[in-house]
Amino acid sequence: MREFDTISAISTAIGEGGIAIIRVSGDRALDIVSKIFRAKNGKDIKDMKTYTMRYGHIIDIDTKEPIDEVIISFMKGPRSYTAEDVVEINCHGGVTSTNKVLEMTIKAGARLAEPGEFTKRAFLNGRIDLSQAEAVMDLISAKTDLAMKSALMQSNGSLSKEIGRLNEYLLNVLALIEYAVDFTEDEEEIDPSIPPRVSESLEEALNNINRLMKNADEGRIIRDGLSLAIVGKPNVGKSSLLNVLLREKRAIVTDIAGTTRDVIEEYINLDGIPVKIIDTAGIRETEDIVERIGVEKSKEKIEEADLVLLVLDISRELDKEDYEIIEAVKNKKSILLLNKIDLENKIDLNSLNNFEYKIKISAKEDLGIDKLKEEIKNMFFNGTIDSESLVISNSRHKQALIRAKENCEKAIISVKNNEYLDLVSIYVTSALKALGEITGTELEEDLVNKIFKEFCCGK
Amino acid sequence: MREFDTISAISTAIGEGGIAIIRVSGDRALDIVSKIFRAKNGKDIKDMKTYTMRYGHIIDIDTKEPIDEVIISFMKGPRSYTAEDVVEINCHGGVTSTNKVLEMTIKAGARLAEPGEFTKRAFLNGRIDLSQAEAVMDLISAKTDLAMKSALMQSNGSLSKEIGRLNEYLLNVLALIEYAVDFTEDEEEIDPSIPPRVSESLEEALNNINRLMKNADEGRIIRDGLSLAIVGKPNVGKSSLLNVLLREKRAIVTDIAGTTRDVIEEYINLDGIPVKIIDTAGIRETEDIVERIGVEKSKEKIEEADLVLLVLDISRELDKEDYEIIEAVKNKKSILLLNKIDLENKIDLNSLNNFEYKIKISAKEDLGIDKLKEEIKNMFFNGTIDSESLVISNSRHKQALIRAKENCEKAIISVKNNEYLDLVSIYVTSALKALGEITGTELEEDLVNKIFKEFCCGK
Repeated sequence: MREFDTISAISTAIGEGGIAIIRVSGDRALDIVSKIFRAKNGKDIKDMKTYTMRYGHIIDIDTKEPIDEVIISFMKGPRSYTAEDVVEINCHGGVTSTNKVLEMTIKAGARLAEPGEFTKRAFLNGRIDLSQAEAVMDLISAKTDLAMKSALMQSNGSLSKEIGRLNEYLLNVLALIEYAVDFTEDEEEIDPSIPPRVSESLEEALNNINRLMKNADEGRIIRDGLSLAIVGKPNVGKSSLLNVLLREKRAIVTDIAGTTRDVIEEYINLDGIPVKIIDTAGIRETEDIVERIGVEKSKEKIEEADLVLLVLDISRELDKEDYEIIEAVKNKKSILLLNKIDLENKIDLNSLNNFEYKIKISAKEDLGIDKLKEEIKNMFFNGTIDSESLVISNSRHKQALIRAKENCEKAIISVKNNEYLDLVSIYVTSALKALGEITGTELEEDLVNKIFKEFCCGK
Repeated sequence: MREFDTISAISTAIGEGGIAIIRVSGDRALDIVSKIFRAKNGKDIKDMKTYTMRYGHIIDIDTKEPIDEVIISFMKGPRSYTAEDVVEINCHGGVTSTNKVLEMTIKAGARLAEPGEFTKRAFLNGRIDLSQAEAVMDLISAKTDLAMKSALMQSNGSLSKEIGRLNEYLLNVLALIEYAVDFTEDEEEIDPSIPPRVSESLEEALNNINRLMKNADEGRIIRDGLSLAIVGKPNVGKSSLLNVLLREKRAIVTDIAGTTRDVIEEYINLDGIPVKIIDTAGIRETEDIVERIGVEKSKEKIEEADLVLLVLDISRELDKEDYEIIEAVKNKKSILLLNKIDLENKIDLNSLNNFEYKIKISAKEDLGIDKLKEEIKNMFFNGTIDSESLVISNSRHKQALIRAKENCEKAIISVKNNEYLDLVSIYVTSALKALGEITGTELEEDLVNKIFKEFCCGK
């Protein structure tokens, strides 16, 4: 374990709450807190047992006046979040008192922790790898149960295990090559049993990578949400469609009172898939403003979206503007919504045959909306999502897997072509390096720092 | 101790944080949590010792799938916040996971706690009285260190002790009267030593009440803030004054990023006194809008304020509008600010002699501002506030003390006038009842409920 200074931060969300926690981590955690804690039972906390608590007051280090009534808990490293000694000060949840207690820990010798620094220490101290650390953040920002479950699995090390298995196959390849090279003087006279065994191990690795990546797109959507654009010319019923979709809104957590976000984004929860509706504000404006959202604006929205819902009003004949928007979505994953089926149909459906997905709805009467939701799920998920299986949800991980995969494929081809085994070994080493980026063993320090900087304070 | 069901709530502030706490309180707390907790060490938590912790997972009660990695801590009643058995579940601070864990405690048999219900139980179970419970809320919403310190003293029972002492004097009076009445057959022949002793005890009580109430106005201001209105006709320098005052803003806690408030209020911290500036928005608007804030608007602001800062521009002669505003603040505690002293003085200061407090400033050049702050403190606090002495900060308490005081005074007059001792005893009983409202022993249940309803959730 490396040597670090002792850090401190408020670990609960900021705001008025019943309880707040100041976390202190490092070798001197107990020592520092003992300077500002007066136990009710009068005992010194330095002999506290791990996983026990004490009741008392935090006092001002200078004036010795009590600042807050607290309960402190102690987790001795390595059995703690950071794998270092951790003291948590559980105080009244006021903003003033919480800050004052934090200030005292600093005065007593702790350093204010950077965002993500506790988790970074857990990583640097070897308790968790980088993929697990990232999963902790995903867990905190998870918008649906499914996203949470996926993050929890990853934080528990399921991805780390898979990477470990891949590493074994690839290290086996390297060992075979080394053996072959060491025990032959002439490259031409290599043990003929070696290349097939190298190929076999490489194929195993490749299969595993492919299996892992199978759900990567779904994973990204589970984590970040599917971005959905609703387009169509004015008065085709975009607002009504939005409203009927937003009825699902209550099911999503970012709406809970007190969540602090500058949101203009709105999310709906589609059986665990967070669906982010792009530019809701625009759609929600008064009719006047909706009128002004023309084809250009639609094109921008289409660009950003994972999926486009193109709304047409079947009670009126299609005009030039409709056709322009139809043209704009041509190369995009989209669903054609034929709205206002409660009214008389005035358009020729045959002219719209190039749309693979077509659903008749009435946004106003809530007809066809369930079918639309079902279709969205089917388009992005092959059947139901198996919550038991590991999903790659982080695009950094996906990119690293793609590089590992490419190198494995190159290595396989090299072996097939009877190229020098040294060349194969270079590809395999590159694949290992790519995998190491996921767990953090092969990532440069500033990149690691960058990842942790995006964490929230106190985590 | 009364019998209650077991309740559960999120006790930390809502939002993305590193840690969140779900608190479960009641006889069945351990039993309920044991249904949804799987310890890492495999042990049942039902034999947990008080003030110890366990590491493990909260699992879905139906599917048994893990929901979050947690540490649970156990505080056996009566040595707990509510004086009941309390289990706190310390989980990852995501909104989704925290809510999911809460949901599981409910599914396992807990009831969702009402706002303030944990503290209410501490009160109903006799661990704290009502004044202490109220101080807990003050502690959470404290805006300055001074407010916090005052609340902490009260939460530790300093007010309760004072009330207890007052009760003793008054109960002594009742005992004396009872003795006198019991041992005399004829009211006229009462033991002549009794009335002076009754008077003495009553005077003692009255002195104590007066001493307690001495700082009550300061107390209210420490707790709720001093509301300050800045008035003056357009272009006299209100915005500049606001800006120079707001430089103190950083010192106040409600500004910390992430604090969730729909604030148009702005607070400055004047040596521990929170000063709330009324209608900052109005002053901060562009010049155009400032222009439109006329006399009528000023009058409204003056009405709300504890203190008015009336700004005049001494570089221009006073006009009708200035005089109208001067007239408007006539009956209000106010300070006259003669602004722009860096420019030539064009007004006759003698015409403003009816202002008790007058300060020359230059808001632009930051001249005289320290003197202004000093003056504000002096106007509302007799010298420095002694942070050691108990301050009545709650207007409910102040009103009750006023009633107790009035009844003591009436009782003293009755004794002096040789009225029937029974009448004295009625006044003393009323005084005791008023004091009982502070500690909650004499408050009707629905009033108690009303007080707790204003607490935050999870407290």
